[in-house]
Amino acid sequence: MSKVAIYAGTFDPITRGHQDLIARSLTFCDRLVVAVAANSAKTPLFSSDERMALVRAAVGDDPRVDVRKLEGQLLVDFAREVGARLLIRGLRAVSDFEYEFQMALMNRHLAPIETVFMVPSLDTTYISSSIVREVARYGGEVDDLLHPAVAAALKAKIAERRAER
Amino acid sequence: MSKVAIYAGTFDPITRGHQDLIARSLTFCDRLVVAVAANSAKTPLFSSDERMALVRAAVGDDPRVDVRKLEGQLLVDFAREVGARLLIRGLRAVSDFEYEFQMALMNRHLAPIETVFMVPSLDTTYISSSIVREVARYGGEVDDLLHPAVAAALKAKIAERRAER
Amino acid sequence: MSKVAIYAGTFDPITRGHQDLIARSLTFCDRLVVAVAANSAKTPLFSSDERMALVRAAVGDDPRVDVRKLEGQLLVDFAREVGARLLIRGLRAVSDFEYEFQMALMNRHLAPIETVFMVPSLDTTYISSSIVREVARYGGEVDDLLHPAVAAALKAKIAERRAER
Amino acid sequence: MSKVAIYAGTFDPITRGHQDLIARSLTFCDRLVVAVAANSAKTPLFSSDERMALVRAAVGDDPRVDVRKLEGQLLVDFAREVGARLLIRGLRAVSDFEYEFQMALMNRHLAPIETVFMVPSLDTTYISSSIVREVARYGGEVDDLLHPAVAAALKAKIAERRAER
Amino acid sequence: MSKVAIYAGTFDPITRGHQDLIARSLTFCDRLVVAVAANSAKTPLFSSDERMALVRAAVGDDPRVDVRKLEGQLLVDFAREVGARLLIRGLRAVSDFEYEFQMALMNRHLAPIETVFMVPSLDTTYISSSIVREVARYGGEVDDLLHPAVAAALKAKIAERRAER
Amino acid sequence: MSKVAIYAGTFDPITRGHQDLIARSLTFCDRLVVAVAANSAKTPLFSSDERMALVRAAVGDDPRVDVRKLEGQLLVDFAREVGARLLIRGLRAVSDFEYEFQMALMNRHLAPIETVFMVPSLDTTYISSSIVREVARYGGEVDDLLHPAVAAALKAKIAERRAER
Repeated sequence: MSKVAIYAGTFDPITRGHQDLIARSLTFCDRLVVAVAANSAKTPLFSSDERMALVRAAVGDDPRVDVRKLEGQLLVDFAREVGARLLIRGLRAVSDFEYEFQMALMNRHLAPIETVFMVPSLDTTYISSSIVREVARYGGEVDDLLHPAVAAALKAKIAERRAER
Repeated sequence: MSKVAIYAGTFDPITRGHQDLIARSLTFCDRLVVAVAANSAKTPLFSSDERMALVRAAVGDDPRVDVRKLEGQLLVDFAREVGARLLIRGLRAVSDFEYEFQMALMNRHLAPIETVFMVPSLDTTYISSSIVREVARYGGEVDDLLHPAVAAALKAKIAERRAER
Repeated sequence: MSKVAIYAGTFDPITRGHQDLIARSLTFCDRLVVAVAANSAKTPLFSSDERMALVRAAVGDDPRVDVRKLEGQLLVDFAREVGARLLIRGLRAVSDFEYEFQMALMNRHLAPIETVFMVPSLDTTYISSSIVREVARYGGEVDDLLHPAVAAALKAKIAERRAER
Repeated sequence: MSKVAIYAGTFDPITRGHQDLIARSLTFCDRLVVAVAANSAKTPLFSSDERMALVRAAVGDDPRVDVRKLEGQLLVDFAREVGARLLIRGLRAVSDFEYEFQMALMNRHLAPIETVFMVPSLDTTYISSSIVREVARYGGEVDDLLHPAVAAALKAKIAERRAER
Repeated sequence: MSKVAIYAGTFDPITRGHQDLIARSLTFCDRLVVAVAANSAKTPLFSSDERMALVRAAVGDDPRVDVRKLEGQLLVDFAREVGARLLIRGLRAVSDFEYEFQMALMNRHLAPIETVFMVPSLDTTYISSSIVREVARYGGEVDDLLHPAVAAALKAKIAERRAER
Repeated sequence: MSKVAIYAGTFDPITRGHQDLIARSLTFCDRLVVAVAANSAKTPLFSSDERMALVRAAVGDDPRVDVRKLEGQLLVDFAREVGARLLIRGLRAVSDFEYEFQMALMNRHLAPIETVFMVPSLDTTYISSSIVREVARYGGEVDDLLHPAVAAALKAKIAERRAER
C-alpha cells in the first residue's frame, strides 16, 4: 500500500523553506498532497488560486506531488478524502513546537492520523512567508529566498498594490 | 479565615479543561470566584452573559464557586473587592508560562496578590476554547471536549451564525 | 572609529525597561540611534512624533543618543544610512528570543550587520508598553514604570481618548 | 523499495512510552530497527543484552521490528549498514526538542539521513526510563507503566541489587 | 480541615529564594512541611542534618513550618504520612517547568496529590544553591543571598574543606 | 577608551563555532580576552595548556585577541584584572538562554559587568565541542567542523587514548 502524506499551510507565498520540506518528505512518502488553506485568520496577499499556482510552479511537475485547496473542512476530513494518514510539519522553533504539538494531539483525537515533524534545512530557518513579504515590501532582495517564478510574482503583486493606493 | 481564590478568563466557551482546573483548585481553596472577562482583544463568539451562564451550567450548583463578570477594572482591583489574594492559572505550555509569569509579577507589583499555577489533566491538554470553536465550525465532534449543555449551546450558536450569513 | 548602534522599536510609549537598556548599551557603544518605527501592525496609542518626543524626554539630552523615525524602509537600509553595524535588542523571555533570533539571521543575510542581545534590569522584566497601557487604562498606578513626563503624557492621552467616546 | 527506519535509545528498560512510539512509526515504515545503545554516559541498570531481551519481550514477534545492538560506531554508520535513511525520535518537551534538533542537523551533516519526530501518546508523556527506575526503587507501582515482563524484570533486578548491598 | 502542603528539595544550603517561597506559600497553606531530601544524585556539601538545621535557622520558629527529612521513600508516600495533598514548587525558568510538569503528572498518577507552582520574588531569580556554593568557593560575597546563619555556615564549611586538602 | 571584552569557555577543543563568535565580537570590541577555564565539572579531553595552544592556533596572531587561563577565581574578578566590563556569549538554544540569563544576572549582581549575547553563524549551530569529540571518537569526519590544526590534534589525542587502553 502506498504511503500518502499531507503538507498543509497558507503558502502566501511558497518559500524555499517549504520547497526544502517537500523534497525531504518525499524520501519516505510515496505521494504528497500539498493542501493550500483557502481561508486564514489574516487576509492573504495572494488569492488561494494564485497561491496554488505558485506552489505548482515552485514544485515543478513531480508526479508524486499533488496540490489541492483546503476549504471549509477540517484537515482530518480532508485527509480521509485523499486517503492520507500522515501529516508533515516543519519545526523551526520552540513556539512552533508547542502549537504544533497541541494540533497533533487534537487531530489524533479526531481521527486515526499521525503527525511527523521534520527539521528544515539550516539555510532556510530564517525564511518565513511573512518575513519574505515584508522584505519585498520595502524593496529588499528576495531572489535567494524564493523560486524565480515566485519572486517575480511577489514583486509584481507588490507593485500592483502600490499602484492601487 | 477562609481562602478565596480567583480563576479569570474569557471562557468562550468553558471547556472540560477549565472544569478540570476548577475542580482541582477546590482541593486547597475554600471559595473560588470564576471571573468572566467581558471585553477581550478579539470579539468573542458568545456574549459575556452567555459565557457566564455556560460556566454556571458546567460547574453546577457548587456553593463554593461563584461566577462573576470582570469588566472595566484591573484584576487586582476586582480581587480586592471579592476579598481574594490568590489567582489560579492553568499552565499547559512554555509560551503560556512566560506570559503568565510576566502577568504574575505585574499583579504582585500592583497589589499583595499571589498567583499559583496548576497542571491541567493530561486528557485536557489539547483542549482550548479557540480550537474547540474551530472544530465545531467545520462540523467536528466536540461532545467529549465540552459539558453537554455547552456543546449544545455551541452547536446552536454556530448554526445561528451560519443562518445569518 | 566610533561604534554606532541602533535600538529600534515602537516605543508606545517608552518605559523604564527601554531606558535601562539604552543606558546599558552605552557602556560599549559610542553612539546610539533610537529608531522609532512609524508604522506597526497595530495602531499605536501615540503618534510617531509623540513617541519620538517622549523618547527624547525620557533619555534627556545625552549627546551620544540620537532619536530618529524609521519609516518605509528596511532596518538594514536605515542602518547603512546612519552608519551603524550593530543592532541592540533586549531579551526577556524565550518567546522573544526565537523571533529575535530569526530576525537577527535575516538581517545578517540582508546586510553586514550584527545583533547583540542584552538582559534588562530585573526590576523592569515585567514592564512592557502594552501592559503599561492596559494598567493605565483601568486607572492603575504607572508612576514607577515610566519616566514622569511619559507617565503624565499617558494619563493625558487616556483621559483624551475617554472624552472622545 | 521498502522504507527502513531506526529507533535508537538506551531502553533501560523499555517503557510503554517507547512501545507506543514503535507502534506509531509502523504506520508509515515498512521495517523498524530498534537500536539499543550498548554504552551510555551513565552506567545502565540492565546490561545491553538484558535490555535487548526486554525490548523483544515488549514488542512481541512482529516481523517488521528488528532489535539490534548499537556499539562502538556512529548512528549514521549503523544506519548505512542496516539500509535505513530515516531516524525516528519521540518529542515530549522543549528541552528534548533542542538537543534532538542539534543531533538531527549533525546527522544530516554526516550522512544523507533524515530525522522525523513523533508525538507520544498523551498517557505516556510522564513516563521515562529514569523516573520508572526511581519509582520502582522506592517500592512504587510500575505495572501500568511497563509491559508485564519488563515490570517483573525490573522488580527482580532491584531486589537483586538490594541483596548485594 | 487545615491545608497541609509540602515544599521538598535538597536545600544545600537554603537560600533567600527558598525562604521567599516558604513565606509566599504560607499565604494560602495552614501548615508547611519542608522536606529535606537526604540523598541526591550529587554528593551534597552539607550533611542532611546540617541542611535541616540551616533550614530551621533561616525559617525561625514559625509554628506553621515543620522541617523533616525525606529519605528512602517516594514523595507521595511521605505526603500521605504527613497528611499533605499539596506540593509547592518554585518556577524560575522554562527548563524547570518541563521537568516539574512531568514530575507533577507522575505524582498525580501515583497518588491523589496536587502540585502548585509559584513565582519567586524577582530579586531571588538568579539565586540557586549551586551558584551560591560556587560564588562562595571563589571568595565572592554571598551575604545578601543567604540568611546570616547560613552564610556563616557556608564560609566555615568551605574553609574546613580547604583545610582538609 | 578602548573596549575590552571577555569570551570565556572550556574550549575542549575550540570549534569553528567558537571561531565564528570571536570574529563577530571583534566588529564592536577593540580587544578580546579568550578565557580558557582550567577546571570544569567534567574532566576535559585536553589539558588547559593544550586547549590554550589550540585556541591560539585557531585564532592566528590577531593582536586584538589575547588567550588567558581562568583558574581559581570568579569570572568577575578575572574581568576586573584584565580591565574588561563586557562578557560575550553565544546563544544557540533556549536552554542555553536560560542558564546564561541567570549567570548574566548573577555576574551583574557581583560586579559592574554587562553580558551581550550573539547569534552564531547558521552553519555552526550544530557544532559543539562535546558532539565533535563524540564524532571523532567513532571515526567520523570533523575536518569541516574544526581548524586544521585542531582537527589534527583531536585525531592524535584520540589515537593516543585508544593506545593507552
